[in-house]
Amino acid sequence: MALISPSRRLRRTPFSEGVERAGVSAYTIYNHMLLPTVFESVEADYRHLKDHVQVWDVAVERQVELRGPDAARLMQMLTPRDLRGMLPGQCYYVPIVDETGGMLNDPVALKLTEDHWWISIADSDLLFWVKGLAYGYRLDVMVDEPDVSPLAVQGPKADQLMARVFGEDVTKLRFFRYGWFDFEGHSMIVARSGYSKQGGFEIYMNDWDTGMPLWDALFKAGEDLNVRAGCPNGIERVEGGLLSYGNDMNRDNTPHECGLGRFCSTQTAIGCVGRDALLRVAKEGPAKQVRPIAIEGEIGRCDRAWPIYAGGKLRGHVTSAAYSPDFETNVAIGMVRMTHWDAGTVLEVETPDGMRKATVQDEFWI
Amino acid sequence: MALISPSRRLRRTPFSEGVERAGVSAYTIYNHMLLPTVFESVEADYRHLKDHVQVWDVAVERQVELRGPDAARLMQMLTPRDLRGMLPGQCYYVPIVDETGGMLNDPVALKLTEDHWWISIADSDLLFWVKGLAYGYRLDVMVDEPDVSPLAVQGPKADQLMARVFGEDVTKLRFFRYGWFDFEGHSMIVARSGYSKQGGFEIYMNDWDTGMPLWDALFKAGEDLNVRAGCPNGIERVEGGLLSYGNDMNRDNTPHECGLGRFCSTQTAIGCVGRDALLRVAKEGPAKQVRPIAIEGEIGRCDRAWPIYAGGKLRGHVTSAAYSPDFETNVAIGMVRMTHWDAGTVLEVETPDGMRKATVQDEFWI
Repeated sequence: MALISPSRRLRRTPFSEGVERAGVSAYTIYNHMLLPTVFESVEADYRHLKDHVQVWDVAVERQVELRGPDAARLMQMLTPRDLRGMLPGQCYYVPIVDETGGMLNDPVALKLTEDHWWISIADSDLLFWVKGLAYGYRLDVMVDEPDVSPLAVQGPKADQLMARVFGEDVTKLRFFRYGWFDFEGHSMIVARSGYSKQGGFEIYMNDWDTGMPLWDALFKAGEDLNVRAGCPNGIERVEGGLLSYGNDMNRDNTPHECGLGRFCSTQTAIGCVGRDALLRVAKEGPAKQVRPIAIEGEIGRCDRAWPIYAGGKLRGHVTSAAYSPDFETNVAIGMVRMTHWDAGTVLEVETPDGMRKATVQDEFWI
Repeated sequence: MALISPSRRLRRTPFSEGVERAGVSAYTIYNHMLLPTVFESVEADYRHLKDHVQVWDVAVERQVELRGPDAARLMQMLTPRDLRGMLPGQCYYVPIVDETGGMLNDPVALKLTEDHWWISIADSDLLFWVKGLAYGYRLDVMVDEPDVSPLAVQGPKADQLMARVFGEDVTKLRFFRYGWFDFEGHSMIVARSGYSKQGGFEIYMNDWDTGMPLWDALFKAGEDLNVRAGCPNGIERVEGGLLSYGNDMNRDNTPHECGLGRFCSTQTAIGCVGRDALLRVAKEGPAKQVRPIAIEGEIGRCDRAWPIYAGGKLRGHVTSAAYSPDFETNVAIGMVRMTHWDAGTVLEVETPDGMRKATVQDEFWI
């Protein structure tokens, strides 16, 4: 691995001081911002995440804020998911598509009120698309990036830790619901959500200068819980089938190809700019789809799409892969053509270290 | 410095193999892609760039392509620079602004024909803004990212090297003009441009698989010229006052604040979405502006905006800084309020290592 050159353009977060103090050893860049990827080692971080509780600097989940009378209309223009039944207090995972049905982002939307929404984004400047649409349609809506920096608390002891800092009520939150909770006089949104399958919360920290006090409070309260600094884990997220925009999908893919067809209500999501294109896709179904794939043998880091072959022909690409200590195999996410996507299908994956035997799985490792 | 975690999301380029072979030691991420930042050392790379010739993988300068009858109209919507006199064969540096006059990018535009343009972008997903506008206005235009990956040849011996690979005619190109040149049967655009003040070219390499053959041909032809792999240099670009989007400016800034008022023809750039807002700015002039600043004493890496004080009050921020061996001072770019932007004004800059005395310069170090 090479070094990363620091510059203002790779933005620090309100929690960067804590991340550095905790001994971060590697980063990625996400939404022009630093996202830790490794503390002790990917394997040690993985073990700890599954056994204890971690605090994650996920400030890179920047918010696109919509405010104004046309906010709800604009929100529905962005996604094929039907938002009519959505209530304040709910979080929705929403594929965002362009006019051709191509994925632009796969964020979580929060409805604050009918005319006030947050979109907690994956790695693309979704703000630019939303601003462009709002301007082009002359909508009565303000679109901006507010001072909100999510901090995640993930792992089996997350409820215990969060109760100590935000009070017992926070543990009553249901999955993908949020509430307003107080920290030292600051009211902030806390949701039961996060980019792991170990359970936990995301705190939508909404005042830059409160970042480190919140970070410190969580570590102080969690000392006996063995709390540590962590980050989205490259092994655990592949085991759990959590997709990563830019890795496992991009603008070339429809939500259906990403296995997100259940979030596309093309009959009822009136106003979605990609609706016509996706209606067509929904009729026939996609010709390729994201699938869980087990790969045998030694593999290196998946830093590019690895071609998948069967019968000497290209059948798709592996886009994320890692060795799983718990499942004792290489777990992978790949996009596979329909002729070869059935569970049990044997494939060959071309890694930089050579061809590897692989098998399509029935489901992810959860 | 920490390590960077490789993943498919941090895209490799057609030249990555050559970059690795040349011993790259650090990267940054730019448009979701790997951009080398250091080979031997920033200082050694700087010396070599000024004395010899370097080949730079600047594939991160992704293109936004506009094609169709409304391409020219859309292009003028994006920028306050008057494009009416622009001809095929020309490159224009074009500030791109939103409806409030805030900078979204500062790319170089190439006019291929009246209905075919490339925008060679800085670090933001400009594609999303352009697509949003095109869709909102129902323009007859295709907007996409083509298979084009610029490779720069920079340094005093650039003309010699380029003549050997593309023929003598390439040296006749004037500054910010381009022509079509042949490499092994591939016709590609070569422009006299680049992100250094040492002179040179940018090759708009337009076929992924031709990337390494072109790389290798340049190195083979330049052996006796002491050609090396290089990259935009953090010292040289600050000396020369070459701004960096995300470092020295962002959406909060108008072109006028960035010292780019001369590219804003607010009286004639009819159709620019930011025209009304900028007309207002142009009347009064900006209240703060980018200035060259010399800083005394030892300074660390400028990985965040450093506050500038005078008389105990905040007067601006330094956004890029480095020690210049040639000018034997710390060269810096900062945004300074008008009360303190005159050359010779003495300021204090708050670096992580302490307060440093600084002086506003008359011009950049060129």
